[in-house]
Amino acid sequence: MNKMGIPDKHRAAFLVNFKSALEMGYTETPVPKGDQVLIRVKGAGICHSDVHVWEGIWYKGGSPRKLPHIQSHEISGTVVSTGESVPERLKPGDHVLVYPWQWLEDDRYTAAGLTNVPDRPVVPGINIDGGFQEYFLVSHYRYLIDATGIEDLPALAPLSCGGLTTYRAVKKLDGKLQPDDYVAVVGLGGLGSYALQYLRLLFPQVNIIGADIREDSIEFADGICKMDGYINSSSENVNKIIMETTKGHGFRGVIDLVGKGTLSTYSRALSKEGIYVMVGLMGTAVQESLSPFFTVSMEKTITGSYVGTLSEQYEVVELARKGLINYRKPVSARMRIEDASSGIQNLEDGRALGRQVVVF
Amino acid sequence: MNKMGIPDKHRAAFLVNFKSALEMGYTETPVPKGDQVLIRVKGAGICHSDVHVWEGIWYKGGSPRKLPHIQSHEISGTVVSTGESVPERLKPGDHVLVYPWQWLEDDRYTAAGLTNVPDRPVVPGINIDGGFQEYFLVSHYRYLIDATGIEDLPALAPLSCGGLTTYRAVKKLDGKLQPDDYVAVVGLGGLGSYALQYLRLLFPQVNIIGADIREDSIEFADGICKMDGYINSSSENVNKIIMETTKGHGFRGVIDLVGKGTLSTYSRALSKEGIYVMVGLMGTAVQESLSPFFTVSMEKTITGSYVGTLSEQYEVVELARKGLINYRKPVSARMRIEDASSGIQNLEDGRALGRQVVVF
Amino acid sequence: MNKMGIPDKHRAAFLVNFKSALEMGYTETPVPKGDQVLIRVKGAGICHSDVHVWEGIWYKGGSPRKLPHIQSHEISGTVVSTGESVPERLKPGDHVLVYPWQWLEDDRYTAAGLTNVPDRPVVPGINIDGGFQEYFLVSHYRYLIDATGIEDLPALAPLSCGGLTTYRAVKKLDGKLQPDDYVAVVGLGGLGSYALQYLRLLFPQVNIIGADIREDSIEFADGICKMDGYINSSSENVNKIIMETTKGHGFRGVIDLVGKGTLSTYSRALSKEGIYVMVGLMGTAVQESLSPFFTVSMEKTITGSYVGTLSEQYEVVELARKGLINYRKPVSARMRIEDASSGIQNLEDGRALGRQVVVF
Amino acid sequence: MNKMGIPDKHRAAFLVNFKSALEMGYTETPVPKGDQVLIRVKGAGICHSDVHVWEGIWYKGGSPRKLPHIQSHEISGTVVSTGESVPERLKPGDHVLVYPWQWLEDDRYTAAGLTNVPDRPVVPGINIDGGFQEYFLVSHYRYLIDATGIEDLPALAPLSCGGLTTYRAVKKLDGKLQPDDYVAVVGLGGLGSYALQYLRLLFPQVNIIGADIREDSIEFADGICKMDGYINSSSENVNKIIMETTKGHGFRGVIDLVGKGTLSTYSRALSKEGIYVMVGLMGTAVQESLSPFFTVSMEKTITGSYVGTLSEQYEVVELARKGLINYRKPVSARMRIEDASSGIQNLEDGRALGRQVVVF
Repeated sequence: MNKMGIPDKHRAAFLVNFKSALEMGYTETPVPKGDQVLIRVKGAGICHSDVHVWEGIWYKGGSPRKLPHIQSHEISGTVVSTGESVPERLKPGDHVLVYPWQWLEDDRYTAAGLTNVPDRPVVPGINIDGGFQEYFLVSHYRYLIDATGIEDLPALAPLSCGGLTTYRAVKKLDGKLQPDDYVAVVGLGGLGSYALQYLRLLFPQVNIIGADIREDSIEFADGICKMDGYINSSSENVNKIIMETTKGHGFRGVIDLVGKGTLSTYSRALSKEGIYVMVGLMGTAVQESLSPFFTVSMEKTITGSYVGTLSEQYEVVELARKGLINYRKPVSARMRIEDASSGIQNLEDGRALGRQVVVF
Repeated sequence: MNKMGIPDKHRAAFLVNFKSALEMGYTETPVPKGDQVLIRVKGAGICHSDVHVWEGIWYKGGSPRKLPHIQSHEISGTVVSTGESVPERLKPGDHVLVYPWQWLEDDRYTAAGLTNVPDRPVVPGINIDGGFQEYFLVSHYRYLIDATGIEDLPALAPLSCGGLTTYRAVKKLDGKLQPDDYVAVVGLGGLGSYALQYLRLLFPQVNIIGADIREDSIEFADGICKMDGYINSSSENVNKIIMETTKGHGFRGVIDLVGKGTLSTYSRALSKEGIYVMVGLMGTAVQESLSPFFTVSMEKTITGSYVGTLSEQYEVVELARKGLINYRKPVSARMRIEDASSGIQNLEDGRALGRQVVVF
Repeated sequence: MNKMGIPDKHRAAFLVNFKSALEMGYTETPVPKGDQVLIRVKGAGICHSDVHVWEGIWYKGGSPRKLPHIQSHEISGTVVSTGESVPERLKPGDHVLVYPWQWLEDDRYTAAGLTNVPDRPVVPGINIDGGFQEYFLVSHYRYLIDATGIEDLPALAPLSCGGLTTYRAVKKLDGKLQPDDYVAVVGLGGLGSYALQYLRLLFPQVNIIGADIREDSIEFADGICKMDGYINSSSENVNKIIMETTKGHGFRGVIDLVGKGTLSTYSRALSKEGIYVMVGLMGTAVQESLSPFFTVSMEKTITGSYVGTLSEQYEVVELARKGLINYRKPVSARMRIEDASSGIQNLEDGRALGRQVVVF
Repeated sequence: MNKMGIPDKHRAAFLVNFKSALEMGYTETPVPKGDQVLIRVKGAGICHSDVHVWEGIWYKGGSPRKLPHIQSHEISGTVVSTGESVPERLKPGDHVLVYPWQWLEDDRYTAAGLTNVPDRPVVPGINIDGGFQEYFLVSHYRYLIDATGIEDLPALAPLSCGGLTTYRAVKKLDGKLQPDDYVAVVGLGGLGSYALQYLRLLFPQVNIIGADIREDSIEFADGICKMDGYINSSSENVNKIIMETTKGHGFRGVIDLVGKGTLSTYSRALSKEGIYVMVGLMGTAVQESLSPFFTVSMEKTITGSYVGTLSEQYEVVELARKGLINYRKPVSARMRIEDASSGIQNLEDGRALGRQVVVF
């Protein structure tokens, strides 16, 4: 341990063999240089992507780049020490959230603020080491969002992925909705419970309908943000139920957090000038059917939304700070780092209702 | 013939039996009342929709409402007489284009300027009698666009459908393109030759690539608006050719005027933040494949564009008047009303390169 | 009285001499033709414009066109009978609000949905006869907004001017605000109490500051929609107070409902990328000072906002119907038609806190 | 001179005493570290701001921070050597333009792509040493725009200020213009000749009118980009001339590059829904008159536009590369670094028609 009380080595959970339990071990604590910042991790969330990294199905694509690997890209913590180029406003003890959608090189996309789609992305926890460790080195101070005033710092962690991705997706409906329109959130649970809150906050004038195939997910989400109605997508006559629930209007907006077998059903239910935001990207490539006739004559739009920009990350944290969204309730489980493997397993097995966070 | 030289009856081409040659006959010349305007038809264009009306495949849906029926929704002409509520600025002899995307009832869409998607549309030539006749009664003066200064009035007619639809579609790319981006027009010929011109005019900074399966269509369009490159979609390795033509960038924008078997190929070739505008709505419902992974992670958008608004109709005519687009060259054939049937037949048989117009 | 119980003549308040009390009398009840609709007036609001019409200072400009004149452009009521071209969905007994920003001729602005700035406007109550009468003939059914579900129909009347103008103004901030920004409403009272509600509803993430020179107006507005702070504009060091109230940030948005001596003070307080929406147009032309240096280097925007579009009128009524705004509380006084003169006088003398409505 | 042929010291023009001729001397050639890049300067433009820096009137505000100072913020050149964190794609010999609107600290504005208004700006040539020297150290590779394919590298330099500022200003009209609208460029000469070109390129459908008080400026600009008309602002009845030139329409857009005594005249000439972009920020604070009545009832907008973003800088260079704008003709004089003082003096005395560039 050095004179500032920072240990030379610290504990971490390592992915050593795909599909095997993470192994606890020690790793060196780095000293931040230049624009870098060292933080003490307080929360490290578990996301669906972590299941895929853990399974090794993205290994060829560089996620992760090598083994052993430290997972988790949803990281909150406190500043420990800073490199010599870091602005003075950042001080040891500061509460921060780490924006994980980082890049190796500034380019035209990052220059334009489209930091979610850089030409050379690098994501801690996915490509390089992430948050399942006591100390984490942030490569540039620009990725740190001030979290002053946030009481429950560990619960903030998922706002950098689950709570960010849904925010960008919901904002894609901006300027498209009229009072009394119907908007669907397809896929409740963790992400859904953020999406519902953003919809209610940003578009209080519309009717919000949730959809899922599990009753407990519907209940979980409704407990966090009261819906105006909900649909069990596994019902036999789901098309008829949609039309009844929306009084024949269909949906002016759909936030699809599933992306597997949902596009056909819910894009058919889009109303004139409706917009369908695809967020869920998991699962095998599904052949979905799109009707050219109705897509054209009703001017429907289908658009992808990917994570969120650095600018949106600031916005999300401020909404949490002002109490305009509840960032704590979507966190359905907290666990020690030793139990991170179980968390990943829960997600794979469909046993997690909301977000799970490793706390330190 | 009355005292103003307007005949009591005038000639028209009637659709009496589906899939049979139109029959020439006479119909009464109405007297305009209230907001109505009677015009002497000068040009009446033939559109792909006319083939479907003629075949009767839309009859159940109310297109046309009854037989016998007078076809053609692309109508230009001169004002003959006006109802008592028509503003004085409209005078006999005025040159006008008829906006065909009309409505039975003012509603929220028409109030907002989205006149292309009214709740109760009615289209002359499609639902009710249209332009294959010497005189045509326009139900409201608001549908008339002043065509003063347009030298070739008959050739203006297709600007109300072919030249309008492509304008709206191209404008959907507004604000999405960077200099040096690649944009594709899929489907050349009549519509394509308008689309190319709008792209060149509104986005001079991008590279414009045409695509078709027929070499003569490619030549026809290129003769009207020089392209930066073209692709024969029937090539075996079309994906490879697309990447070569776009130097590996793919398309930031696609204007798809075909809509049949093209979505899979060309949406795959969309670049990050790319936008795909579907215009072609004909053909049987095709199962096309959309990759959720790339749609989401590259934030691709697929959007339908349907005809155009009344406001866009004004813009299109002004572009023609200022000589910023060539509205004459896309017209590849002119014919007498007696030959309207042959025109429809040409289109059905794929023998028409550009737009065909019946002239009076 | 005819067989439907509609009297041949009905009571009205006439402006016979400018600046003199309105005179009660009778006028003929018209029979609606074509697109026209006759309504039984239930509420007729009094607006600041009515003071100017009453004073005769706009007479030369055609407001009103002639004397005697029936004032009031904020009109709600029930449908009595309809012309032969009116859609069947409109039925006797239907509750409606009248959109007063009407036009004599359809043109490019109305085609585009910019119905608030037509080339040939005509406003009942201002240019032609308005709502201070028992029956009112609406010139076209398109100006009627369905008010089904609105319990207090008379209180709805001001939503067609005061409650519409503020809605459009607030919407001009759309896409410009970040969480934790400060937005000012300058001028409380009637209009201010609508503006505050729209801000809270559409931008829950920002801090809303009210400003007025009267403490009772501040109290009145705060009672309808709780503010995050307020400023008495008559304070000596108002610039200093603004900076204290906004913690040094200044305003990202200002809704100026006064427009007289306020532009210099509050545009100086705009933050970077700030937007200043001018709504108040009354008062003599004031020489206000604009700093080119700060307007440019901070990219400030000053924009006028005029009444609202027909499309926005639909939205406003739906917000009231869904209970998302309180349309009743801004109405501070209700009176009989015989007392309409006193209402106008109250406004002129600055004795009206909120909106006043003549009820039938 | 080191082994790479880079001299230890190089020549520079120093501002030693305000309002006195620059003094030639030597300064050390730095070695780039981290993200830094050393370039060999090829062009260093002279801008109006340089006159103010030279006069010392901005000294208190930190422009420049200290004396002696090296002026010029419009810099083009070739890469000499790079710091260890600079991406490999940047290589010695590469042609580049330097984006001068730099910042000391990444913040919310830079994160959102609004790099033109950072919280802590720092501009080479204005605040710190700039381009009047043979070698220039760029603080971060992100500020370098690839200029491959640009034949006349020195003439590119002014595109980083004059040619960027006008581009952003013109783009503020995007989506606001209709075919046949009139747009004015107020202030011709260097900036004006860029603005005219961008207008013609981006809005070919509108009529472009130039305005200046000098006939030779009008001629100079017209020689670079043919206008549809022009106005000598010093004419006695300028208001009448404006209305004649615009056939009574007024301007839908104004790009005001002067900002001194022009706002009253040209904002009065704005048409309905018109937008006035203020770019010129020089001169003493002028009391200009804005009519609240017309600003509101015609929904006019006045907005400031400040330099340009990094993203827009990329766009501008690509337009030059594709030959869509002529970047050479606005450069009216080239001079040796020994004559930089005369260039500044020319500008102060109003003797420069276009942009002046120091070439190496």
